[in-house]
This record gives sequence, C-alpha cells and structure tokens, in this order.
Amino acid sequence: MQSDNLLKQVNFIKEIDKLKYIQRKTKLFNSDRNENDAEHSWHLAMMTIVLAEHADHAIDVLKVLKMVLIHDIVEIDAGDTFIYDTLKNHTNTDQELMAAKRIFGLLPQEQAEEFIAIWQEFESGVTNEAKFAKSMDRFEPLLQNTSNNGGTWKEFNVPYEKVYDKKKAIKDGSATIWAYAENLINESVDKGILLKDTL
Amino acid sequence: MQSDNLLKQVNFIKEIDKLKYIQRKTKLFNSDRNENDAEHSWHLAMMTIVLAEHADHAIDVLKVLKMVLIHDIVEIDAGDTFIYDTLKNHTNTDQELMAAKRIFGLLPQEQAEEFIAIWQEFESGVTNEAKFAKSMDRFEPLLQNTSNNGGTWKEFNVPYEKVYDKKKAIKDGSATIWAYAENLINESVDKGILLKDTL
Repeated sequence: MQSDNLLKQVNFIKEIDKLKYIQRKTKLFNSDRNENDAEHSWHLAMMTIVLAEHADHAIDVLKVLKMVLIHDIVEIDAGDTFIYDTLKNHTNTDQELMAAKRIFGLLPQEQAEEFIAIWQEFESGVTNEAKFAKSMDRFEPLLQNTSNNGGTWKEFNVPYEKVYDKKKAIKDGSATIWAYAENLINESVDKGILLKDTL
Repeated sequence: MQSDNLLKQVNFIKEIDKLKYIQRKTKLFNSDRNENDAEHSWHLAMMTIVLAEHADHAIDVLKVLKMVLIHDIVEIDAGDTFIYDTLKNHTNTDQELMAAKRIFGLLPQEQAEEFIAIWQEFESGVTNEAKFAKSMDRFEPLLQNTSNNGGTWKEFNVPYEKVYDKKKAIKDGSATIWAYAENLINESVDKGILLKDTL
C-alpha cells in the first residue's frame, strides 16, 4: 500500500539524519574542520555529475549517484573506518552488513533490497558504476589533503606507498582523472607533504 | 580539450566546498544544531530517490537529483534566505543570478550553461521535475520542525497560515506526500507547536 510505504520511507529519512554526525578523519578544503559523511556524500554526488564525462567506460550516472549518496550510510551503526587504518579493513565487515540490513531495512521491502544491492555493488567494485563511484571516493580526500598541506597523511604518518596503493583505484574509473591525481601525488612528494617510506 | 575541462572542474569542486559552511535556520532532527546547505542538499537527494514513486507526474529522477544537489550553491555568495523572512523574497534575486554565473561559470562553458539552466528551471518551479524538487525542499524542514517541537516556527513566531502557504507547494509534486504533510501541519496546531495567527 502506498501510504504504508510512505510511513516507512519517512522513518528511513529521519534515521539517516544521523549521517550528519559521523565525522571523517579528512578535513574540509583549506580547513581544520572535519568533514562529516553527509557533506562527503553530497560532494561525491556533485563530483559524479561534473566529472562523468571522464569515465572510461559507459556508466549509468543515476546509479553512480545512488551509490555515492548511500555508500556511507552503514557508518551510522558501524562508524567511520579510516582508509589507512592498519588494524581494520573497512571492506564489507560483518558489522557493516548488519548495519545495511537494519537501516535499509526500514524501507519498504523492495526498496530495501534495491539499496542493499546497490551498496554491495559499490563495495564489490566490479561494475563500471562501482569503479567510477570508488574513483570519486578516492579523489575527494586527495584534493582535500593536498589543500591542507598533507592533511591526514601528515597527521597519521601515512607514507607515499600506502597513499599510492589506495589512490590507484582512481585509474579503474578514469585514466584522465588518474593522470591528474598521480601528478598531484608526485607533486605532494616533491613538496614534502607526502613522505616516502624509509623503513 | 578534455584536460582543460578537468582543471576547470576541479576548481569548481574546490569552490563548492564552501556550501558546507552555509548555515540554514532549520535544525537537524531532534537537535539544536543548525543544518548546513551541503547536508540539506544530500538529504533532499536521498528523499528524491526514496520518494520518487509518489510523484504525481512522470519525472526524470536524474534531473531532479541534479536540481536538489545544486539548488543552494548560489548561497555561497548570496547567503541563506530564511523562507519566512518578511523583508526579502528569496526567489531569483539579482544577487543569486550573479552568484550562479560566477560559481557555475567556473565550469567548462557547456556545463556551466547546463547548470545555470537547471538551477533556473528549479527556481521557476514549472516543470514536473522542478515541482517535485521543490516539494522535497519544503518537506524536509517540515519533518525537522515537527521533530524539534516547532523548531523555527516557534523560534521566529511563524504562524500556521504562513507555514501552510509555503508548504502547499508540496501538493504540486505529490498528492500522497501532501496528504501526509497536511496532516502533520494540523497535528502541529493541535499540539500547540504551530500557532494560528490571531491578529
């Protein structure tokens, strides 16, 4: 029934407000204020619209937008995991799957299943849409850290090798954006705001 | 040239980070913390995806998403105008048009023109997409204010008549959502968190 759907959807809309309280490690551009997950998701959505022309493979832009808008909602329950965390791999933890089932499960069943599937498709990173969405997710903090004199790289002593290893996923979405990103990483080493591992 | 496009697009991506600092009058759900424009835009995008099935007329969801994601970007220069401000009508001020031209003008020309056109289509409120986008923009603060014991209605002494007058635009997007919203407004009057004008 349509109005029953609406009640469930309104509950979901209220619940996801909590994403605005989930703080990321990364700071806003030229700033020492942490970005929250809702702001981050909005920014990735804008980047998707603006940069879609650089995708190397045909993408359904609407699907990529859905991915980036919902990709962090599981963090309402599971919390933000720092991408360079050495103790915890953020990908598809049991905790995140439980979170997806609880939060998306507030929606009408068909929609809940659609959202869980889109989130899993993003996490798997196999389809063209997931690759492009992930390239956006890697590109934004790269721009932020370079605007912040090294940002989280400096704050948490993340060496070039680890940054390069995470950022190269950008290449799977767009060779053009990767060329720009790789250059930015190299410039960061030259400037001394990203250090090579000397161990 | 594609890489020239990318440089312009990256500048735009950096510039719009400022939307995260534009504070709205409305508070988050069950909270006394003001919402910012980036969080608001993300929430409207989520609402669009979730509630699209209730649109009374055929809508291009991708276009509605573009509208709600960019609709407040002009406020980076023009500032947020409170919807119940009695001295200033927020719609299509000269200041907002100048802002649109400056900020979207950072993008490659074709994209700049597309974004300005989408923003103007939203502001005009004539097409099905604009009507649905506006219904989302009216519905979110209604949900927030009712969660906050009256929220900005109480804080700024906004009477029922003015609230009803602004909220009835929801009807142009969806009769189902309007039925829910109208009920919520009436309940708010019954609860005494929204007062009828006694002048």
